[in-house]
This record gives sequence, structure tokens and C-alpha cells, in this order.
Amino acid sequence: MKILVIGANAAGAKAAAKAKRLNPAAEVTVVDRGEFISYGACGIPYYVSDTVKELRELMSTPAGVVRNPAFFARVKGVTVITGTEAVEIDRSGKKVTVLEQKSGEIRTLPYDRLVLATGSHPATPVLYNVQCPSIVTVKSIEDAERLKARALPGTAVCVVGGGLIGLETAEALRMRGVRVTVLEMRDQLLPGVLDPEMAHQVEKELRANGVEVVTSCQVVGFDGEKQVERVITNRGEFPADLVVCAPGVRPNVTLAEQAGLTLGTTGAIAVDERMRTSDPDIFACGDCCETTHLVTGRKVYLPMGSTANKQGRVAGINAAGGDATFSGVLGTTIIRVFDCNAGKSGLTEAEARALGYDVETVLAPAPDRPHFMPEAKPIALKLVADRATGRILGLQAAGMGDVDKRIDAAATAITFGATAEQLSQLDLAYAPPFASAMDNLIVAADIMKNKLAGEAKGIKPREVWRKLEDGEDFILLDVRSPDEHGEVRIAGAKLVPLGVLREKLDSLPRDKEIITYCKVSLRGYEAQKILQAAGFADVKFMDGGILTWPYELER
Amino acid sequence: MKILVIGANAAGAKAAAKAKRLNPAAEVTVVDRGEFISYGACGIPYYVSDTVKELRELMSTPAGVVRNPAFFARVKGVTVITGTEAVEIDRSGKKVTVLEQKSGEIRTLPYDRLVLATGSHPATPVLYNVQCPSIVTVKSIEDAERLKARALPGTAVCVVGGGLIGLETAEALRMRGVRVTVLEMRDQLLPGVLDPEMAHQVEKELRANGVEVVTSCQVVGFDGEKQVERVITNRGEFPADLVVCAPGVRPNVTLAEQAGLTLGTTGAIAVDERMRTSDPDIFACGDCCETTHLVTGRKVYLPMGSTANKQGRVAGINAAGGDATFSGVLGTTIIRVFDCNAGKSGLTEAEARALGYDVETVLAPAPDRPHFMPEAKPIALKLVADRATGRILGLQAAGMGDVDKRIDAAATAITFGATAEQLSQLDLAYAPPFASAMDNLIVAADIMKNKLAGEAKGIKPREVWRKLEDGEDFILLDVRSPDEHGEVRIAGAKLVPLGVLREKLDSLPRDKEIITYCKVSLRGYEAQKILQAAGFADVKFMDGGILTWPYELER
Repeated sequence: MKILVIGANAAGAKAAAKAKRLNPAAEVTVVDRGEFISYGACGIPYYVSDTVKELRELMSTPAGVVRNPAFFARVKGVTVITGTEAVEIDRSGKKVTVLEQKSGEIRTLPYDRLVLATGSHPATPVLYNVQCPSIVTVKSIEDAERLKARALPGTAVCVVGGGLIGLETAEALRMRGVRVTVLEMRDQLLPGVLDPEMAHQVEKELRANGVEVVTSCQVVGFDGEKQVERVITNRGEFPADLVVCAPGVRPNVTLAEQAGLTLGTTGAIAVDERMRTSDPDIFACGDCCETTHLVTGRKVYLPMGSTANKQGRVAGINAAGGDATFSGVLGTTIIRVFDCNAGKSGLTEAEARALGYDVETVLAPAPDRPHFMPEAKPIALKLVADRATGRILGLQAAGMGDVDKRIDAAATAITFGATAEQLSQLDLAYAPPFASAMDNLIVAADIMKNKLAGEAKGIKPREVWRKLEDGEDFILLDVRSPDEHGEVRIAGAKLVPLGVLREKLDSLPRDKEIITYCKVSLRGYEAQKILQAAGFADVKFMDGGILTWPYELER
Repeated sequence: MKILVIGANAAGAKAAAKAKRLNPAAEVTVVDRGEFISYGACGIPYYVSDTVKELRELMSTPAGVVRNPAFFARVKGVTVITGTEAVEIDRSGKKVTVLEQKSGEIRTLPYDRLVLATGSHPATPVLYNVQCPSIVTVKSIEDAERLKARALPGTAVCVVGGGLIGLETAEALRMRGVRVTVLEMRDQLLPGVLDPEMAHQVEKELRANGVEVVTSCQVVGFDGEKQVERVITNRGEFPADLVVCAPGVRPNVTLAEQAGLTLGTTGAIAVDERMRTSDPDIFACGDCCETTHLVTGRKVYLPMGSTANKQGRVAGINAAGGDATFSGVLGTTIIRVFDCNAGKSGLTEAEARALGYDVETVLAPAPDRPHFMPEAKPIALKLVADRATGRILGLQAAGMGDVDKRIDAAATAITFGATAEQLSQLDLAYAPPFASAMDNLIVAADIMKNKLAGEAKGIKPREVWRKLEDGEDFILLDVRSPDEHGEVRIAGAKLVPLGVLREKLDSLPRDKEIITYCKVSLRGYEAQKILQAAGFADVKFMDGGILTWPYELER
């Protein structure tokens, strides 16, 4: 049995090694057009920032052995042919034509089972003068070397695209002393990953670290001949010695398409649960294929290194004659930008609403462990649930503290269709160095339960801001302490500290809309309950308190 | 409606506040025999170590307000009576007799619904001269103050009990410059929390930080009159200026028992899912009651601050006329001892075997994020699954890196009855600052799948050690590099690096038992597959590699 794999990065390397382990009698061959194989592509920004000192580290096993063709031959029993591009699949003849790039030699490789792990490429848009030198992408190790050579301290770099790769690269370049401007087409950073109020925290962190951020900024083209000089946008021109294009990626499907394999609605290669394409002898895995979203059941294109590894394993097993399935993903995503960690699993509010869900949301900022522990750092969680069933649709988390573990627990819960009730009862690990007795996730789930039961009535910061802008007649009630209020507040708020609210009920009108707020929203909620109990007709608390208020504050 | 709560710490305070919010018309009263209420009891070791500087911080809200009776009255609308002990429950008369400790005044408090949150006490065993001064427990704030006053630098302190509280206190005292010896009755630290090979890592860390650890050490009594001088044990006498008794806790059930409420088989108050005792108008929550283990379905006594809060909420809702349930726990536990984090969720191997499960285990040590990231730190996971169904029964984790998030994700997965297959497909958050493309948990689950499918054949370090001790005829094959082998190895191992194994097959006997090992077990597994494929009859790899080998190594 001959198993041929096209592509020797995460998915392909995994598929090949697994196939050989499962079926030692099989002859497993991998072709890759690049010279560098099986490298940690997601590590590139950290190589750019010199966090990872040696390129070699990205391509080594934890034991320090470089994963080169010799390693694959000796350890995995797999033949890897680099610098060789697959140019055509002959499905009826069951062979692949390959081109050795240096020699120009063309030959054919036969297969019984074929695994496509052809990866993805940056979806650079058609822009005026985009071919100008000094406009680079961040995908390969060659890109990384180019960036490191060019991005000298004091250089002005524009990063086009405020998604994951754009922001990771912006951070890396800033750490090299470069002047960095991020230009994002949408009105927020990380669209599709975070809702605006969560993305706002990442934007704040970038600015605090000297990165310029320009949103709603549509790049039209570039000025410069021998090398780029300016980025031309709908929001003016931005001088640049170097431009990083980070527009997101598209699947490499040409080979599959030319071979007549079915592509999905996402444009990526269609596969079933066994990672099988429309040809039963051809499998696909990693960035070139689509997958299923576990919340919506829809086909999605969400390429990730973590998914590529899982899919590679499944494709390898099935190609080798075994039986394995891959069920899908939740679009789990995480990023560190300087000291801010942010990510999500499942659907954002925007995604859920666009899909027609009737959603309830909770915004819960709090320290990530007991406030009395010196290492406690703030994080904010945003929980999105389906109002009808209480089912958790998604979690977002952002802040300086540990967001990853809340995202991982939520990802696990969402996988199993957990409701807010079930989430609130999880027996998560508790000790003061790690978490509060009521973990942030449990608190968020409890608030969600209170909201779903109609006990807690929240209102979004955006709504409150709009009401203030429109000059609506309502009372914005700050229930924090006089000290906190003195330091920073929302303009127009009335101060009645929670501790004296019960005594001062008569100072408030019972028929007017009252919106309470505090630092995080817990006291705001207490105030809502006190006022409701006292017969006040229309009381809400502002979600997330002043901590996640993304607008101007009065100091 | 009058709701009376006995006990004003985690569970009681939560129950009272929640009851009042849900039913503002109810009159909610809490009595507590102590002066300090609603404090973070789990924070006490961190106050002892001066990590938490001010006692006040343990008793404050995150906003800095002390949670005293005035706070409960003003903010929560709840009356808290401190320094007052409940001495008798009159169930037919629906009233509780209380004793004000300072004045000696006795009075009765009527109730419609009663919530017992009477907590727990250290289960100090009957030992010779245990009443000797300078033998203290670590339960209350008074205990903490006493410890801080006595534990001066250079003092010799014996901590009796190597459980969570014992080890947290040992660390705290060591940080004060005290000479600390931990005496543990069982043959390992943290029995019931970790299996021996995992507990070994915690023990190593304690020793590395100058804490003496003596296991299999049964304390018989204490020498000394005005103050303790020596601890008398089956393993000799240990000088001590101060003894900390940390024997684990028992529920405070006297009041409930005298009132004729049913106690469970665990000795704690029996409650149903609604936290209702055998009297429909009396609820119990927190450390005084038992709960259900979600893996076994059995009743267990596993008091935790996190559980107390959840149960308090449920008891409060039901007492106030609402409807809520608490389903149970997984015995999730975590501890930080110096730079080692360790914990578990679900069953340990020992617990699972004792309960009659046919278990498979995986020991997977690895960096907690990509090895090329400077912040990567080692952790070891131990996964326990039911061989028949593949269902995950438990996860243990220990090491310097992030163990908490793997425990939380596993806790969530176990709650939903996840199999190894399901665990291996979780869409966990991936980016190099947070985790490897294949998270440690995914790797452990994949190994478990390989083992359950019979593809991977592991053998426990303990078994290998026994074979070596017994002088059995087998080959212990080190497949690491010559450099690694030169540095440290298991005595008697034969070196054939993985990279040359395929060439050197003829140097190994095909009919003899071969046990491969490497640093973590991944290369060991590769070697097993290579040898198996080459027709070797009896090959296994040693679980966890040299990294979790708890015995002597040759250097």
C-alpha cells in the first residue's frame, strides 16, 4: 500500500507519521514544495520578536532534534521529499505529477491513498500597487527572515489587517522598536473573534504599548516605486517603510479543484467526518479543507494549527486503513497582545445574532483569582447563551489575567451542549493561587441564570451610551463608593453608594427608568434588586460596570 | 417568612444573601459563633506567609468593603448576629436556641426555613499529650494569628498531616524562615488527591525548598509540658517548638444530630439535590453536609470553598421558596507548593481501582506550551479511564507549568461523561503563549486512545522498578540521545537512540521482553511501534519516561 501526502506541515506530517505507525507495511511518502517542513508556523511572530532566538527551535522536537527529511526517515519511517511541488493529480491513474523545483525535473508518484494537506495562503486583496517591494505577508519562515531584516528600530511599518496574525505581528514588530500602525477595515479589531466591547480591551492595550490603531480604515493601495512609501486609505495616507499584509488566509485548493474534487460552500475542500474528500481514496486535512461548527452544525472554514493536527491524525488513520472521525470545531481562538490575553470559543454575540439566535449575554469583569492574592489580574468574560434553552453558545474572555483556562473549560462545556445551569455547577479547581472560590466562569453562569430567569435585568453599555447621547430622561445611578466616584465616573451619573441606598430610597423617583452601575456590575445588580424590592418600576444594571465601559470617562 | 441561617461563612453568607435577593419580603437572619464572618478561610495560609499582608483583605469584597454585620445589613438586607452560638434546634416549635457568648444570654430565634451552614472542624486524633500548648490547627483567623506570632525564623515546626492544609501551611511557614518537617502517616503525600508517582513531584519540590518530609510516619503523641518539645512517632522523635495539626476536617453535625436530622454514611448531614435535609424546612450547605460524586454516583464528604458557595446559593434559593438543585462534585482539588502546581479532578487510579473499575492509565509529561516559548514549563498529566467504555474517570496534573487549565477542562469533560475519544477532539485554545498545537490534554487523550485500542502498550515505572529489583531478564531500552543518556539514566538500561533504532534492529533479541523509555514516553512509544512492526514479540514503553521516574537515577 502506497500512501502519498501532499504537504509536510502540521496536518501532513501528522497524517504521514500516524499512517505509518498504524500500518507499518505501508510505504508513506510526503512531498512539500518548501524547504522547511513541519515547522511551528504559529511560532513565527515569536521568532520575529526574538522571543524565540533560533529558527531551529521552531523546527525541532521538544528533545531538540530537527524535524527534517532525515528525521522523518529514521524515526518515522516516512520518506519526505522537499522542494517539490505537486502539480497534478491523476485520479483514474492514481498518481500525482510532481515538479522538483531546483532541477525542473518532473515525475509521477503513484498512490493507493492520497492525503491533501496543501495548507493556505494569505488572501491578499487586489490593491493598487500591491506588488510594490516591501509589502510582505507573514506566512512562511522566509517571510519571517525578510521581516527581521527589514524591520529595524525606528522604521515605520503599517500592518494591514487587525486579525490574529496582524496583531501578533504588530506586537512582534513593536518589540523590535519599530513604529507600528495597524489599519483595520472593520470598525473594531479582531472581527469574528471578539464582540466590540471585548475587542476594545485589546485595542487599549495596543495603544498603551505605542501601537497606532486605525479602524474603519479601507486600504486602497500603496504609494512608492522601488519601495513602498505610503499606504493610501479612505482615512488618509500613512507613511510606511514596510507594509505587512495580514488579510487572513484562504485554502490552497487549486490542485484539488483541478482534479475535480468537490469544494464546499466555504471554498475549502469538502470532507466528511473521516476527512475523506469526494474521492474515497483521497483525504484532506488542515488549512486546505473545511470543517463543521459544533454549535451551528454548519460547514465553516476556520483553519488552526490545533485543528490541523487533529485532522491530520484522523486522515492518517483512515488513509492507512483504520477508522477514525473528526467531529468539528468551535472556532476557539486566543491571542496575547503585550499583557492582554483575549480569545473566545463558540459564537460571539454578533455571530449568534446573525445566525438568528435569540441571545442573552453577560459581561462579567473580575480579578482572575481572589483579589487578596498579589498575582490577581483583571479579566472580563462575556457569555452568550440561547435564551430559549439556556444553552451556552459562546464565551469570550479578555484581560491581563488567565483567560485561557476559562476559554478551555467553556469550549469543553459548549462541546457537550452545556446550559448556563450546568456551567454554573462545574467543579473547577479552586485554591487562592489559581482561582476564586466562585470562578469567574461560575459567576458569569450564575448571572446568566439570573438574567434568563428574569431576576437580573441588564442593559448594554452601548445602549446606555446611546441614551446619554440622545439626552433621554433616565437616572444613571453610580452605586460605588464616593472615593471611586471621585476618581472616575460616567458623566451625568448620580452617586448613591450601595451601602446607603436602602436609607436613601426616597431621594429617587419611583416611576423613572433607573440604570445602576458599579465597577464590575455585582453592586449594580445588588442595587437593582434593592430598588425592585422597594417597588421601583423600571430598574436595570449596566452590564460589565465601568470596567468594560468602552467610551469616555470623566476624571 | 423568616429564614434563619446558622453559620456566616462561605455557604451561610451566600445562602442568606441569595435568599434575600430572591425573596425581599423574607426576614433573613444569620447567627455565627465567631467574630469574623464571611472570610476567605482558604486564604489563611497566604496570610500566614505574608503573601496577603492585611487580615482585612481576607474579609473584604473586591471593592474593599469589609463584609461585617453592618455591610450585610446595609447592602444585603440581612441581619448577622456574631459571637452567638446556636445550641439547639426545636423542629416542632420551629425555633433555634442561641447563646450569646460574651453575655451568656440565651434566647430563641424563630424560623420558617432554617439553613445549616455549620462548617467543619479539624479531625484532630486522640494522641498522647495532644492538649499540650503549642499544638495548633489551621482553621480560623485566630489560628492564623497564633501561628504568625509563634513561627519565628529558626523555630522548628512539625506539620502533622501531608494533605492540602498541611502542605499549604508547611509552605507558608517555610516562607517565614521556619524549619519545617512534614509528618505523613501514609506512604505518600496528598493521599486521596494524587497517585504516588504524581505526589512524588510535590514531595521533590518540598525537599528542594528545604522542607523535610517523612512519610509512613505515624504520630503517637507529643513530649513537653509547658510547651511541646518533641513529636513521638513510629519513625523516631522529631524536635519541635511548635506543632501544626492538619489532619483533615470533619463536619460539624452535633446540632443537626441532636435535632434528629439524618446523617449520611459519610457522617455529614444528608441532603437531597435541593440541599434539603430529612426535615423539609431545614436545608444544609457547605462543609457540614455530604454531596454526590458525579463519577461514581456515591455519597461523599468532600468539603471545598467552591462547593460551599454553590450549595449555599441553592440552599438559599430553596429556603426562599424558589427551586434550584446542586448535582454534585468531582473532588476537584488543586494546590500550589512553592513552584509546583498539582491537582486532580475525578478519580485517581487508586480510587478507581478500589471502586472496582478496570482502568487504563496514561502518564504524559511535556512542556505546558511549545518548547520554543521561553515561558514553557514542564507538567505531567495522568489520565485515568474506564477500559470498557473509554470514559474518562479522572485527571491528575503536576508540575511547574499551568496545570489548572487542564484540570478545569478535564473536570468539565468528566462532568459530561466524556470518553477519551471526545477528550482528544476538544477545540482548546491554541496560540504559542498559551499551549501547544496539541495541548497536553489532547496528547494524553490520544495516548489513551492508542492504549485502549491496543496500539500502545505501556508499563508503569513501578512495575519496571520491581522487575529491575527482582533481577528479571528483560531489556530496558533507552531510546534517547547519547547526550541525554550520558547525563542521567536508569541503571542497567541499554542505549539505542531512536534515530538509529531502525538500523540496529539486529542488535536486539526478538524474543525477549523489551521495555523502551525516553524522557517523556513519546519516543519510547515510537520505538515500541518500530520494534513491533519489525516483528519483536514483547515490547512495551515505560509510561511517563524518565521525567516521572520516582526512583534513583544514575548520573
